[in-house]
Amino acid sequence: MRVNTSGRAALLTAVAAMVCSGPAVADEGMWLFNGLPREALQSRYRFEPSAEWLQRVQGSALQFDGASGSFVSGRGLVLTNHHVGSDQIHKLSTPERDLMRDGFVARTLGEEIPCADLVLRSLTRIEDVTAEVQRAAEGLSGEEAGAARRAAISRIESAARKAGSQDASVVTLYHGARHHLYHYRRYSDVRLVFAPHSQIAAWGGDYANFGYPRFCLDMCLFRVYENGKPLEPEHYLRWSEAGAADGDLVLVAGHPWRTQRLLTVDHVRFVRDVDLPHSLFEAWRRESIWQQFVNRGPDERRIGLEALGGVQNRRKARAGVLAGLLDPAVMDALRSAEQRVRGKAQIAEDAADPWQQIGEACDRYRQFHARHVATGGNRPFRSALTSIALNLVRLAEELPKPSGERLAEYRDTALDGLYVGLYSPAPIHPEFETESIAAGLSYLAESFGAEDPLVTALLDGRSPRARAEQLVGETKLADVAERRRLAEGGRAAIEANGDPLLRFVRAWDAEERRLRARHEREVGSVLDAAYARIAAVRFELDGDRVYPDATGTLRFSFGPVRGYVESGRTVPPFTTYGGLLDLHAQRADDPACALPPVWSERRGKLNPQTPLNFVCTADIIGGNSGSPALSRAGEVVGVIFDGNIQSLIWDMRYTDEQARAVCVDSRGILEALRVMYDAPMLADELQGR
Amino acid sequence: MRVNTSGRAALLTAVAAMVCSGPAVADEGMWLFNGLPREALQSRYRFEPSAEWLQRVQGSALQFDGASGSFVSGRGLVLTNHHVGSDQIHKLSTPERDLMRDGFVARTLGEEIPCADLVLRSLTRIEDVTAEVQRAAEGLSGEEAGAARRAAISRIESAARKAGSQDASVVTLYHGARHHLYHYRRYSDVRLVFAPHSQIAAWGGDYANFGYPRFCLDMCLFRVYENGKPLEPEHYLRWSEAGAADGDLVLVAGHPWRTQRLLTVDHVRFVRDVDLPHSLFEAWRRESIWQQFVNRGPDERRIGLEALGGVQNRRKARAGVLAGLLDPAVMDALRSAEQRVRGKAQIAEDAADPWQQIGEACDRYRQFHARHVATGGNRPFRSALTSIALNLVRLAEELPKPSGERLAEYRDTALDGLYVGLYSPAPIHPEFETESIAAGLSYLAESFGAEDPLVTALLDGRSPRARAEQLVGETKLADVAERRRLAEGGRAAIEANGDPLLRFVRAWDAEERRLRARHEREVGSVLDAAYARIAAVRFELDGDRVYPDATGTLRFSFGPVRGYVESGRTVPPFTTYGGLLDLHAQRADDPACALPPVWSERRGKLNPQTPLNFVCTADIIGGNSGSPALSRAGEVVGVIFDGNIQSLIWDMRYTDEQARAVCVDSRGILEALRVMYDAPMLADELQGR
Repeated sequence: MRVNTSGRAALLTAVAAMVCSGPAVADEGMWLFNGLPREALQSRYRFEPSAEWLQRVQGSALQFDGASGSFVSGRGLVLTNHHVGSDQIHKLSTPERDLMRDGFVARTLGEEIPCADLVLRSLTRIEDVTAEVQRAAEGLSGEEAGAARRAAISRIESAARKAGSQDASVVTLYHGARHHLYHYRRYSDVRLVFAPHSQIAAWGGDYANFGYPRFCLDMCLFRVYENGKPLEPEHYLRWSEAGAADGDLVLVAGHPWRTQRLLTVDHVRFVRDVDLPHSLFEAWRRESIWQQFVNRGPDERRIGLEALGGVQNRRKARAGVLAGLLDPAVMDALRSAEQRVRGKAQIAEDAADPWQQIGEACDRYRQFHARHVATGGNRPFRSALTSIALNLVRLAEELPKPSGERLAEYRDTALDGLYVGLYSPAPIHPEFETESIAAGLSYLAESFGAEDPLVTALLDGRSPRARAEQLVGETKLADVAERRRLAEGGRAAIEANGDPLLRFVRAWDAEERRLRARHEREVGSVLDAAYARIAAVRFELDGDRVYPDATGTLRFSFGPVRGYVESGRTVPPFTTYGGLLDLHAQRADDPACALPPVWSERRGKLNPQTPLNFVCTADIIGGNSGSPALSRAGEVVGVIFDGNIQSLIWDMRYTDEQARAVCVDSRGILEALRVMYDAPMLADELQGR
Repeated sequence: MRVNTSGRAALLTAVAAMVCSGPAVADEGMWLFNGLPREALQSRYRFEPSAEWLQRVQGSALQFDGASGSFVSGRGLVLTNHHVGSDQIHKLSTPERDLMRDGFVARTLGEEIPCADLVLRSLTRIEDVTAEVQRAAEGLSGEEAGAARRAAISRIESAARKAGSQDASVVTLYHGARHHLYHYRRYSDVRLVFAPHSQIAAWGGDYANFGYPRFCLDMCLFRVYENGKPLEPEHYLRWSEAGAADGDLVLVAGHPWRTQRLLTVDHVRFVRDVDLPHSLFEAWRRESIWQQFVNRGPDERRIGLEALGGVQNRRKARAGVLAGLLDPAVMDALRSAEQRVRGKAQIAEDAADPWQQIGEACDRYRQFHARHVATGGNRPFRSALTSIALNLVRLAEELPKPSGERLAEYRDTALDGLYVGLYSPAPIHPEFETESIAAGLSYLAESFGAEDPLVTALLDGRSPRARAEQLVGETKLADVAERRRLAEGGRAAIEANGDPLLRFVRAWDAEERRLRARHEREVGSVLDAAYARIAAVRFELDGDRVYPDATGTLRFSFGPVRGYVESGRTVPPFTTYGGLLDLHAQRADDPACALPPVWSERRGKLNPQTPLNFVCTADIIGGNSGSPALSRAGEVVGVIFDGNIQSLIWDMRYTDEQARAVCVDSRGILEALRVMYDAPMLADELQGR
């Protein structure tokens, strides 16, 4: 795959190769831990992980707040990205103690700060339950088959929990060709140990985000406790003293959230022309609104910066994918490649063509996509209070039903996590809430007109801002005890309650359920069935030599440390502290390139040669943030925190001409801990001293 | 009108009063210089401007780049806002001499910098040509009547120019009830004299924009030359030594661009639900894209900051109007008020109801509004090069036609201004151009799908970025001589030319013409006729006791200096340099509130009592920026630069409970010139010393 052609030509080759042949090429792939590409690892890299190696890596890997982390010491120390931990760091900050701006070091165990609403999970065991799930749907089709499968999955999960699994959920792979039951261990006493200043964690700001060369100390440390004492985990990862060198193979264990690599051309067209533009529109709008909020003053900055960073990240990721899909040549390549695959599929004369079914489902979805997406869950508001109110209203509605018949986010397996959020004592900022709800209400009016029945019901005779002020001013849901009382009281308590936010949410719950049902009926069930048929054909041909699309569960990726050429210029794989200081001097006027005061003072003490960031070709995506990057020996050489701009298209297509995963270097982390943060005890703990 | 109720109640009263009664209330009104509200001025303020007073003010007022300015010395010195002059200041900047960042003072006439493409105009005479225009359309209707009126207008303008008018154009007022011929004097040798640092001109940045209290030195000075020497204008305004005091009447002469105060309820609904959301969407998107461009580095900052500020301004203005219209009670009030007016209109049984016709035209427009707006003129690209290419292609097409049959922007009266821009030697920044065109292409693809015929024609087989790079890389239109050659060569030269940008523009010129014609046929001509009928009814009732909607031409407004109450807090009318320094100290961490170095050094020398900004109730809008604010004696007490957030709804409805025009104080200007800029000679010139 690595040929000396332009990036675009390489992309076309990759696309053609993949769509046409099926099995992954080059270092592509987010592999299952029970389905590693052993042959490729052996033939390309002479690497053969032992059972013990795999067990240690799998057991050390952690699901961390929708992203990834890992155990990195025998006393329960957890490594992840600053931008993954920042939701917690942000919640633990107060006007007097801004942990985002100033960083944090616990110098003793006693100084470590408990997180109120953080639960980590490690994957302990995988069971193949495909046969049981498929048996349940035998002889059924369409929505009935879907319901039967969901009921079976729910039964399997309940049985596992009754049999003693702390947490168990069925993961549907290859669009339904396989179903695996994942057993997890849960860790709910997690404490903040170390966070660098956000200024150095995200050095260079939005401009640098997704760029390379990068200079970010995007990492932080937590510790898992059990019974009030540091956990001694069964597995943890050792730290690499030597780090990685150019060309070294890097192995990655993390939780890529979602890829769309098996989409048909018609479906990609829908994503390109409908879904991505809509999602970008929402992101641009939010970015402007949060930027204005953050600009109001230091308090607003502390409160809103996390949300602003999130939406800028989303905007940039989506824009990158869209830019890739707007290359007409890429689409042409996909089209001709798909033609060849379709030619191999043997479709009975009287059976529908699944590719055509998918195209038709996308066309149907165009009719109500904007409304479906705009009303989805808490999406229009992105407010903590509306999320709480929605969960209370829906729990009351859903809990009385059997788990398998509930909305997905209220099934038994989801409840533990949901309650952690619902009862979180994390601070709620009324001004930010008001801004969020007002922006959401205006968004709905802009999208559907101010006289739309849903909009008038939500506004209840007020302007968006006045309505938001009223809701935030009058609701009692900022009080955790009130939430608990309502949740425990069930439907009767909710219906008897006059909290305006509960009434507000009910006005829109009904609409969302209607649209969700329509989507399931006209689009979702059709896509599921059609993709399952296509996947079955592919699975028949290739078996598990192909990897399934990412599902937010543990996956294994790999690829060497390797620079690239961009606009005729060689981009070397490593950056160093020396490079950081040079660029800082060059961009003295740019606040995004400032250094925290202690970094300015002590910069002379940094070894300019110490690597800070590096890139490799491992196949990663959103959700992989915080994944440990490992040497052949299974030692931590870095932590994944980003992909470069060329990798944004990895959502839909892997290429390795210029696209790269970006890591913080293990050596850069040790140097920062020792030189900048007076935290030799943490560096020693990582180094096993 | 000023009653002690909440702002909203006051707004409702204002709306009801105006729509129902017709004649303006309180200080409302953008009056014609040949139609002043003499009675109101006399009865409310005991003010009776003499003929000499009016002649001096009219003759001193200048049209300045779509906004306003005025002669303020006997040697041709011109006062306007920094944000009005900034287009020129920006163009005169180079990497070595950044006049936006560092400000500029010409210490001698010889140091004044000529502007390459700036033409100012003063209004010398107004003639009523209503009868002649209406006679031309007698017995005709619909599109035919429109064409006949346009031909008549064109004839009148040509005749005036042939008769020696430097510049003459017919202004259509009261939706066609009146047509006035405006004669202008043109000034084309204009030189930059003084600009403060942009940091102090727009102090507080985007957050402060439209807010109050404000602390902005948003002014700059140019000088008009004639035959290589400073012009001695026939009229100019004297500077006020004393400035204004709380409660003083302020008179304003400026060029409000466009109001929509006579729209029907259905039309307002269209603006609220369709036009404003679309326009906001475009602004949010551009804001994000320009912000990213500006963040790249100091060069990009210099090049892009002007565009970013413009789009943020637009975004905030539109969001303010939308927020006003999303108050359901405002719409209810409009609706019931309109009912009463419609009741008075005597519509023949067999004639169509103009209110209903307008509603139907808006409904038709919904079908193609997004496409019509997205392809309008240079709007999707906002690039200098595409604007040049479009003008070249269209000049070749339009010039051979009689003036009255051309697209409006190519009629004889528009050509002088058009050629100034077309042959401007202002620098063209390839990176910014590429970014602009790529963003525009992606915008069209996001809006209409990548396979839309217009989009595929424009992309010509490339991605948006690759296409933009190709166009900017290959075009020769950055060269003024090439533009001149092509313009002079006419259609033959354009068609023979292989410049890819000319071909690019042709692909989209055809589409825009089609949509423009459809709009004229299905919407524009219907609205014109229907509004003319409504206006005739109103004119019949009220005569020129009502003012016509703003048309970008010279108007007269008035109102006293007056603070207001906001969230229970009194906002005093004046701010001072002392207040600026206090707020600067409080927001030390905010780059938008930094001071330029010389301001930091010398801040101790400022008199903290000197007024910097003040507010008054004069009725102004976009285009009034740079308008002189005058005392009863006709002396300059300030210069209008903004309205507060509550005034944004003035686009559609005037209120004076909280809404205010914001001015730079004449005393603050003198103090800055003397203390910060070592420019006593300019202060002396303003003071007539």
